Amino acid sequence: MNSTAKTHQISRFPVPELKDLPADIRDRIVAVQQKSGFVPNVFLTLAHRADEFRAFFAYHDALMEKEGGLTKAEREMIVVATSGANQCHYCVVAHGAILRIRAKDPLVADQVAINYRKADITPRQKAMLDFALKVATDSLGIADADFDALRAHGFSDEDTWDIGAIAAFFALSNRMANMTAMRPNEEFYLLGRVPKS
Amino acid sequence: MNSTAKTHQISRFPVPELKDLPADIRDRIVAVQQKSGFVPNVFLTLAHRADEFRAFFAYHDALMEKEGGLTKAEREMIVVATSGANQCHYCVVAHGAILRIRAKDPLVADQVAINYRKADITPRQKAMLDFALKVATDSLGIADADFDALRAHGFSDEDTWDIGAIAAFFALSNRMANMTAMRPNEEFYLLGRVPKS
Amino acid sequence: MNSTAKTHQISRFPVPELKDLPADIRDRIVAVQQKSGFVPNVFLTLAHRADEFRAFFAYHDALMEKEGGLTKAEREMIVVATSGANQCHYCVVAHGAILRIRAKDPLVADQVAINYRKADITPRQKAMLDFALKVATDSLGIADADFDALRAHGFSDEDTWDIGAIAAFFALSNRMANMTAMRPNEEFYLLGRVPKS
Amino acid sequence: MNSTAKTHQISRFPVPELKDLPADIRDRIVAVQQKSGFVPNVFLTLAHRADEFRAFFAYHDALMEKEGGLTKAEREMIVVATSGANQCHYCVVAHGAILRIRAKDPLVADQVAINYRKADITPRQKAMLDFALKVATDSLGIADADFDALRAHGFSDEDTWDIGAIAAFFALSNRMANMTAMRPNEEFYLLGRVPKS
Amino acid sequence: MNSTAKTHQISRFPVPELKDLPADIRDRIVAVQQKSGFVPNVFLTLAHRADEFRAFFAYHDALMEKEGGLTKAEREMIVVATSGANQCHYCVVAHGAILRIRAKDPLVADQVAINYRKADITPRQKAMLDFALKVATDSLGIADADFDALRAHGFSDEDTWDIGAIAAFFALSNRMANMTAMRPNEEFYLLGRVPKS
Amino acid sequence: MNSTAKTHQISRFPVPELKDLPADIRDRIVAVQQKSGFVPNVFLTLAHRADEFRAFFAYHDALMEKEGGLTKAEREMIVVATSGANQCHYCVVAHGAILRIRAKDPLVADQVAINYRKADITPRQKAMLDFALKVATDSLGIADADFDALRAHGFSDEDTWDIGAIAAFFALSNRMANMTAMRPNEEFYLLGRVPKS
Repeated sequence: MNSTAKTHQISRFPVPELKDLPADIRDRIVAVQQKSGFVPNVFLTLAHRADEFRAFFAYHDALMEKEGGLTKAEREMIVVATSGANQCHYCVVAHGAILRIRAKDPLVADQVAINYRKADITPRQKAMLDFALKVATDSLGIADADFDALRAHGFSDEDTWDIGAIAAFFALSNRMANMTAMRPNEEFYLLGRVPKS
Repeated sequence: MNSTAKTHQISRFPVPELKDLPADIRDRIVAVQQKSGFVPNVFLTLAHRADEFRAFFAYHDALMEKEGGLTKAEREMIVVATSGANQCHYCVVAHGAILRIRAKDPLVADQVAINYRKADITPRQKAMLDFALKVATDSLGIADADFDALRAHGFSDEDTWDIGAIAAFFALSNRMANMTAMRPNEEFYLLGRVPKS
Repeated sequence: MNSTAKTHQISRFPVPELKDLPADIRDRIVAVQQKSGFVPNVFLTLAHRADEFRAFFAYHDALMEKEGGLTKAEREMIVVATSGANQCHYCVVAHGAILRIRAKDPLVADQVAINYRKADITPRQKAMLDFALKVATDSLGIADADFDALRAHGFSDEDTWDIGAIAAFFALSNRMANMTAMRPNEEFYLLGRVPKS
Repeated sequence: MNSTAKTHQISRFPVPELKDLPADIRDRIVAVQQKSGFVPNVFLTLAHRADEFRAFFAYHDALMEKEGGLTKAEREMIVVATSGANQCHYCVVAHGAILRIRAKDPLVADQVAINYRKADITPRQKAMLDFALKVATDSLGIADADFDALRAHGFSDEDTWDIGAIAAFFALSNRMANMTAMRPNEEFYLLGRVPKS
Repeated sequence: MNSTAKTHQISRFPVPELKDLPADIRDRIVAVQQKSGFVPNVFLTLAHRADEFRAFFAYHDALMEKEGGLTKAEREMIVVATSGANQCHYCVVAHGAILRIRAKDPLVADQVAINYRKADITPRQKAMLDFALKVATDSLGIADADFDALRAHGFSDEDTWDIGAIAAFFALSNRMANMTAMRPNEEFYLLGRVPKS
Repeated sequence: MNSTAKTHQISRFPVPELKDLPADIRDRIVAVQQKSGFVPNVFLTLAHRADEFRAFFAYHDALMEKEGGLTKAEREMIVVATSGANQCHYCVVAHGAILRIRAKDPLVADQVAINYRKADITPRQKAMLDFALKVATDSLGIADADFDALRAHGFSDEDTWDIGAIAAFFALSNRMANMTAMRPNEEFYLLGRVPKS
């Protein structure tokens, strides 16, 4: 069925060759490739616009690589849960893989993508995802009570900003992936599926 | 995160012991176990009610095991696509595994569950899933034109009944799984992930 | 306006002749005809597929004919309320008639079909229909609190299974009726309209 | 179940006594009673506010009693179809009765209330109801093409105003009935059920 | 962009000349023109149907010009908030102007039209708009608890009728404006924008 | 009503003092103040997080300040229309002001915010907003046909990326504004209201 998968296009828009890219963008892509063993298609798709690429990944790193009250696995949970609600194929598959690796758990990504309320996560994490989903799908309805609900689980208001800002950033990211018909690399589907023993 | 997963309960309702079941139900469960290496939790959950168990699997087999214009992989595609739309965790995980195995394709189940319109499947299969999703989520709106659309792809009206009836049966199945909080076996997550080489 | 109603077709699919049916199916249909004075079109429509017919009515009888904490009128209320929410014309008209007869009440079926919250039924029955409607339209959202709400009205968990399973079964039934464009018999519209005096 | 129905209240608000009403309002109510044999509860409920009563029925009569390209039965069809979509119990039951009488058809009201697309009415009447439902539920989306669709069925633009204005007026009426919890008289349920022979 | 705005048509339907109108309607329009300095297009659009015009404005005046527990500015808030939810361009622009003038506040109309929950209004006014929006968009769901919520803010049940009836009347008005593609006069956009100093 | 407006808080989160900000951020804010006469609250609200501030405005400028097939007024139209659909109060009020100024049109912002399909804009601009709204609210549904529709109006695929990327960026921006309860400056309400004569 997917025998010709390698010929599927990565994006509806032109994808630049590495050699034609500005040095800073090429360097980042090479670094990712060396670490992961492949270049996730989001880098190639967004490299079509150099300034937007730079802003996108600066924003991404400011939210996903920082220290704070959320673990990196929890940040990925937010991405997977909101992308599942937005039915963003690229983000669910790619960040599902990252979540499996960061949580060292082969099940949690599929659980969170389909229905986080039934996932094997803590009540604190469910409260975190309740807020993230509200930002993603009903930000108009956010009220002071939603902040209180997070405080009751020990989240600081800075943590709440993180949760909301990650959900907001992936509202952008999901829409770019859907508009460009960004295709997830096949490598993502299997990553982290086998639990570390 | 899931270190205690084995102690999660399978169902909100009592789950019978194999030895307490009527012989025909026990025989069916033992046969599945011998073939698959484990007992899918749907069998144990529904065995709580013997008469409903018998009717459920008789219906299931009449739709999923028959010959006809749809392959067995295509029948599973219908299950995965409609269960994804209904956010039924059990059905997406369990039938996603069966779809990977029957299609000999490690990617297609995740693609169909999240957004079948972007999946690596044929236009004929997308038309099949358009109809299945309409039965699942807007059966009121089904019109003669929907039958014509399937005929244009070479489906007979008997095939159309199959597509619609599978979608209708899993409308029932999804609701039972959600009501009972049926938990997918961990074995399903990994089945069929590695392509046959 | 309906002067030619008798020539309307019963189903989008072929309807078999009684004489061509397997004996067990023909016997069931004849028995219904002798009891009711006519053959409800659901029997003729589904007889197009013998194995599915047998499974459908086995399932139906397991849920609707059993003893338990729900009266037969209450089981029909669940059918009418969920079918109204799904806008299933056949089920509202046919089961509305059965409900009027079983409840000996000429008003309740129309009330429940349009808006059960305003119907002349007990608070316990409204709680039962709240759960049934949640299974029908938002089964993903079912939580332990929904079971508690029913326990507070004296329902056992076995009763709750019954309520949910009836709603789930008619999720299937409504979709089959809509897909086949099943036409209600004219007899149903008037049955049970006049209160027993 | 409805043995105590007569004691149900008609409205959430006070219902005036006939003798306390202004003469013009009392005269209208008495005239209706003499013609119908009972006083529909909408008259008693709205009589709580004399000026609004007068404006409501002046508007109603301007739309429902006029001559034009629509028959009186067709005007009632619009009321029943849009009130069904709005789940307005009073309007479906009361105007369903009027529709059965005006159309001399015991089936059409239930068909139109549940799903007019499957009703035994003409394609021209379905086009009329398509427009009425769009005014009722998506008036923002009305475009010139909707007027063309009606012209193609022989409706003049004045007929189109009638269709839209009736749908708009019952958008008001449905909301008043729901706000006041207006209860339909039991007489309505049976009126027009038996075809004239 | 709007250089030709004056040639845009006011309504999809014919707009009568003042001289051709019945005297009572012409008198009303002339009075409005003398007071406001221009004729709001709703008068010209609805004058196409004299009887409906009379009923419409009799209803309007009964609700908007009366004494009672709501100020005139509050009545306009209800119109602006519900018309915003219905995306009725004419009503938001025209009644937004009236609200700015009556409230002597250049900001409140835009705030209420976009999202009244974030507007600079009192908790009592937000409770009033909660009820109005429920009548406008979910009148089926109105329950006794909604009346209690208003009583807790000091509204009498007569005030509640006013709130609900205004929301219901503009459900009609919004639909007429959308059906006729009624165009707001340009004068409305600027009225009341500069606070009285 | 807004006599105390100046004391309303700008954001749910702490707002830094200018003097405490990194030099590059302070410089940008001072430059805006000198050009506009006031500091839009989005600058103060987002300055709570310096790295996110830098990425946000780098992204903003890459999309809104570039040359290309869209005028600056058209880019603002996209912001106003999608923010209206998301009911983002800050973005509608602030970017509505910018749109009035850039389009030299006092009416267009209110028209586009409430219902762009009825606005005094060109068919090409309506096609642009159709695509932008689809990215904002249904990005999953974007198909090749949507690109064709824009090509038919003379948009290049690079223009289409611009339209979609602006809509995606304000999906992020709207959610940040709603999460922080960002308050629009009062100056925005009046800007550009009086046409240049």
